Amino acid sequence: MSDIPVTVTKPQVFYNFADYRKWRHQMVLEGKKVGFVPTMGALHSGHLSLVKLAKSKNDMVVMSIFVNPAQFAPTEDLDQYPRTLEDDIKLLGETGCCDVVLVPSVQEMYPSGITLNVSEQKGTFVEVLGKSLQMEGSIRPHFFRGVATVVLKFFNIIQPDMAFFGQKDAQQCVVIRTMITDLCLPIEMIAGPIVREEDGLALSSRNRYLTQEERSYAVILYKGLLAAKDAYSSGIKDAKKLIEIAQDVIKSEPRVSFDYISIAHPYQLHELDTVNEDGAILSGAIRVGETRLIDNILLDCQL
Amino acid sequence: MSDIPVTVTKPQVFYNFADYRKWRHQMVLEGKKVGFVPTMGALHSGHLSLVKLAKSKNDMVVMSIFVNPAQFAPTEDLDQYPRTLEDDIKLLGETGCCDVVLVPSVQEMYPSGITLNVSEQKGTFVEVLGKSLQMEGSIRPHFFRGVATVVLKFFNIIQPDMAFFGQKDAQQCVVIRTMITDLCLPIEMIAGPIVREEDGLALSSRNRYLTQEERSYAVILYKGLLAAKDAYSSGIKDAKKLIEIAQDVIKSEPRVSFDYISIAHPYQLHELDTVNEDGAILSGAIRVGETRLIDNILLDCQL
Repeated sequence: MSDIPVTVTKPQVFYNFADYRKWRHQMVLEGKKVGFVPTMGALHSGHLSLVKLAKSKNDMVVMSIFVNPAQFAPTEDLDQYPRTLEDDIKLLGETGCCDVVLVPSVQEMYPSGITLNVSEQKGTFVEVLGKSLQMEGSIRPHFFRGVATVVLKFFNIIQPDMAFFGQKDAQQCVVIRTMITDLCLPIEMIAGPIVREEDGLALSSRNRYLTQEERSYAVILYKGLLAAKDAYSSGIKDAKKLIEIAQDVIKSEPRVSFDYISIAHPYQLHELDTVNEDGAILSGAIRVGETRLIDNILLDCQL
Repeated sequence: MSDIPVTVTKPQVFYNFADYRKWRHQMVLEGKKVGFVPTMGALHSGHLSLVKLAKSKNDMVVMSIFVNPAQFAPTEDLDQYPRTLEDDIKLLGETGCCDVVLVPSVQEMYPSGITLNVSEQKGTFVEVLGKSLQMEGSIRPHFFRGVATVVLKFFNIIQPDMAFFGQKDAQQCVVIRTMITDLCLPIEMIAGPIVREEDGLALSSRNRYLTQEERSYAVILYKGLLAAKDAYSSGIKDAKKLIEIAQDVIKSEPRVSFDYISIAHPYQLHELDTVNEDGAILSGAIRVGETRLIDNILLDCQL
């Protein structure tokens, strides 16, 4: 069967809202369901798995590619963030599952302008109170405000029936699901599973920053989470103990800098003392050289 | 012609999103344009003029009636705010211009709950930075956050083609227009003119709070604004002078308490030194007994 050529559908690429909206209106007239995968580009198999999942549940799939300034702190890697548009579109074509790519300008996304200095920002921003300042938000206090704001803008442009987010960004899934509910958006959110390298490292656009040596031990975060998960499966429900188990594994690798391990409620995101019948998000972050990596495992819950 | 009976169309009333959404979907299928007038009820001719304006530009008109907790401070009149649903629906029927009234519950509007104490609030809120803390916002610092949040929820439920707001709440018009632009909402916003009593008092649901005596001198705010407007028309462009002219008129009435007079840029809302070719919003607030009243006149600009 390997001789049959794979059908390669090139996605249509729109660079502004007006062109996209014409296409979207046509889909309404044709009664087509539209699935949406928001990304910052630098696509990998994790993104592509979301595109395939979206296609399995919708007639049409739209991806946005936009490196969102509002979710970067002034000290972070906005300028260095990988931008690989041509490769991205080629990859999407190879899946045959993506119909439209929207690549908007910063100006059209932020008509009131956008500066990374939050105290100087003007215009409209969205915050999900109660779920944005713990876990990743404790280290990146304006991150989820930037994410919620840009995702809401995209929802209003794309007008999707369903939106797909990676479980890798677990807190983001919870924040966006809360925003959808609170703002009465007629959109179904679906979290797609984490895609991993063979050794277990979670795929991430930021893995490109790793040197070959760093890459070899970056998987220690996942190994730590996995150890805690195994302990949980064998009956340990005490969060402090589970965190210690993960931490011990991670700290056995002296070349990484430990950031945090969290065991949080899957919907409310408060830290748990004991994992109960609601389950938990077991998550963590480390620094490998200059690169910050995050990962998580769900304990008897879904996002 | 006065013998011909007026056609009285009773609007359909929905109390939850699901019923409304079914109706809205039908309108999409029929290709009908939907205009939206958000209100807190206690309807008067100002609201009805917006409904008529909406009907003149759309196939269908939807009004929401919802007293929004998030735009009241704990010290304000949330509990006392007039609730006159039956009268409201009767009035709307008499216009023959309103097709649907949505009267949602607080619970459906605020799924994460809502407390008036901002520091204890949970869930999703929208802020329009740079336009929310001056003028009315200087006295009611969380007011426009509450307004923007509830209007956005309604936009997502109602899915209007056009939305109608009264010029009486001039700053609200600017905040909402900015939000529509920033959040890439496919909605056209239209500001309807202020409707006044014969003596010039701007219609307001809060006028019901006034005693007969208070009512007799409440018009002093409008008289002050009018004096400044006349001075502007006769060539005075200096904001300080114009404000003084309005202030002198208002302070000549000792039974009202003067709050502020503002001459602000019509889109950016900063206070002006001199009114230039962009024009200005001339606005003000007074207290008459326990009741706070606002009013404005546009100087060579539109909202």
